[in-house]
Amino acid sequence: MGESMNTTDLEKSTDYDRLVTKFGLSYLRNIMKRIKNPHTWIRREIIFAHRDFDKILDLREKGKRFSVVSGRGPSNKIHLGHLGVFSVVKWIQDEYDAEVYIPLSDDEKYVFRKINGLRDALYYAYDNALDIAALGYKTKITHFFVSTKYPPLYEYSVRLSRYTTFSTIKAIFGFTHDTNPGAIFYPIVQSAHILLPTIEKGLPVVVPIAIDQDPYIRLTRDIAERLDYFKPAALHSKFLSGLDGKPMSASKPETAIFTDDDNKTIKRKIWKALTGGQGTLAKQRKFGGNPDKCVVYEWFRAYSLRSDDDLKIIYNECKSGDRFCGQCKKELTKDIITILKEHRKKKMELINKIDQFFLHDVDMDIINKIAEHLEKIVVNANE
Amino acid sequence: MGESMNTTDLEKSTDYDRLVTKFGLSYLRNIMKRIKNPHTWIRREIIFAHRDFDKILDLREKGKRFSVVSGRGPSNKIHLGHLGVFSVVKWIQDEYDAEVYIPLSDDEKYVFRKINGLRDALYYAYDNALDIAALGYKTKITHFFVSTKYPPLYEYSVRLSRYTTFSTIKAIFGFTHDTNPGAIFYPIVQSAHILLPTIEKGLPVVVPIAIDQDPYIRLTRDIAERLDYFKPAALHSKFLSGLDGKPMSASKPETAIFTDDDNKTIKRKIWKALTGGQGTLAKQRKFGGNPDKCVVYEWFRAYSLRSDDDLKIIYNECKSGDRFCGQCKKELTKDIITILKEHRKKKMELINKIDQFFLHDVDMDIINKIAEHLEKIVVNANE
Repeated sequence: MGESMNTTDLEKSTDYDRLVTKFGLSYLRNIMKRIKNPHTWIRREIIFAHRDFDKILDLREKGKRFSVVSGRGPSNKIHLGHLGVFSVVKWIQDEYDAEVYIPLSDDEKYVFRKINGLRDALYYAYDNALDIAALGYKTKITHFFVSTKYPPLYEYSVRLSRYTTFSTIKAIFGFTHDTNPGAIFYPIVQSAHILLPTIEKGLPVVVPIAIDQDPYIRLTRDIAERLDYFKPAALHSKFLSGLDGKPMSASKPETAIFTDDDNKTIKRKIWKALTGGQGTLAKQRKFGGNPDKCVVYEWFRAYSLRSDDDLKIIYNECKSGDRFCGQCKKELTKDIITILKEHRKKKMELINKIDQFFLHDVDMDIINKIAEHLEKIVVNANE
Repeated sequence: MGESMNTTDLEKSTDYDRLVTKFGLSYLRNIMKRIKNPHTWIRREIIFAHRDFDKILDLREKGKRFSVVSGRGPSNKIHLGHLGVFSVVKWIQDEYDAEVYIPLSDDEKYVFRKINGLRDALYYAYDNALDIAALGYKTKITHFFVSTKYPPLYEYSVRLSRYTTFSTIKAIFGFTHDTNPGAIFYPIVQSAHILLPTIEKGLPVVVPIAIDQDPYIRLTRDIAERLDYFKPAALHSKFLSGLDGKPMSASKPETAIFTDDDNKTIKRKIWKALTGGQGTLAKQRKFGGNPDKCVVYEWFRAYSLRSDDDLKIIYNECKSGDRFCGQCKKELTKDIITILKEHRKKKMELINKIDQFFLHDVDMDIINKIAEHLEKIVVNANE
């Protein structure tokens, strides 16, 4: 924990420092004492900065409830990076009895041309919801909704729209004349997602985001201020590395592991991962590896559920040349196969219950299609 | 009927000819033979141009049904000009068994700052709907909806948004950097209003509009074309004169007569109307009046339900100096008081039935408030 842990991320911490300064954020480590039982992502500083999370804690300590809004753009399957973020959200729910809202922004993916039709997004929306709910969210205080399917959302968006201007939106999103007018309106809809618990229940909100997304939060905070709402707080995460060392992306399937990847695929993908190893056994023995520059080690920290003590052993063995990349890859593969096997079991158990989490009717035809797909993987994965 | 009638409008017909040429419209008179039992506004060329209405007639003659979409921005009460437009829509319903959709665009009025809050628009939306329905629309084939209250509308708008660009919208609406992003998105929502019967029921659409609004229809036609939908047809009306001779506007109450104006108010407003009279009885006797430049005469044509023969008598008496402005004003006042008394009775009868016309739940608290207000006027008007 602490600074030494921080440096194990592939990105240089100085870049993060620059962003923290540029955006005027605070380091989470400065209020760490106030956070009981921190999630591993917080302890390991994968989530490392914040804006007004101390205010949220102040309110909570006075008995006030709050809400977490954590959106998902449903243009693809869920991968480990997403699961990580939503496990932090679940931790907040458990630790603070927080009301969780999960907007599934089919509109966003459509207006920015990440999907061909809204119907395509709907499949991923429900599939993603099942993956997220499988982390163990509480039905009564967890609310999913598809952006185009929750009736009051458009009304809220219209209401908020008067509290910002085109030039503000343009400065953040950088539109051109070819831009779809829906893409100009979407940032307002996103603000409505974020402010929904405040509008509907008067709850203050915290939003977990990747640090580069902070400008979007600031737009919503400006709108909230003009409406005398609590300005949404944020928790900022570092960029998650894909298996190739570049930012993880669902659109480059070989860099991420999806919850429906079969064991063979998981094995193959991890085997190709970028490591901090020396390339040959002899060199590794002689010079030791560099876990601070190793995706496999980063993934052990982020996704394997290994204890801090276990991580320390792996780290030291690698450094001293007593551990080779093949061993790490095999162990990580085994860990992830175990995690995803259990995960898919839980996902399957939710098939007939997922509608209870939604703020609107759920299309059971799509849910059944997802169940069919899931059954095939479960069979496959158990082989 | 015909050309001579046309010249009785206050605006010069040459301006209209210019707009017809500029927009590439067709004159309705060229297809008049195909229109059985034309509405007085069509016979008297208040509605005088069209785009593709002949295609609508072609389809209807082949047994295909169609729809009329005629929106209303609910930021004020309904005046005689609105009633006139919606009586044409009702005529289309009766004559062609057309399915009528009436979007009440609270969002439009809010994003363009014509109202303070969406709630204010809701009062006018239901009040306007009662006024419109009171014209005798058929419940089963007439559908009102408030723009922010009909759930699928946002989804339709998002879907359409990809088929146009910001620069197209900007060219039509002329935004600045201060523009609310909601106002940039609204034209798409309006296109969704217009295409709703096509999207939901595959019906071709015709939209009655004031001629200056043609560019908005063209936006929707462009979108429709890209989606292989029937491109909405349009019926174009001339500008309606207010009592001061300038365009009628609900925001200048003295220039219009609202359905809830009491008898005293109606009398006062019409008494101040701009006429084509000579100013003194002696001069009027000597030179005769000019009904072609007279708002009172225009209103006889548009709102009094007088027959063509009656109008001819009034016209000739005025021209020859046998009729004075006071007489015309008194007769018009009497006509309109009679019409509105009957209108309010029908409006009152709909109070408990108006929900049957709506595509979504209706707020009965607001309806009850409207009923209270209506009772007061009815009592007042009967004095």
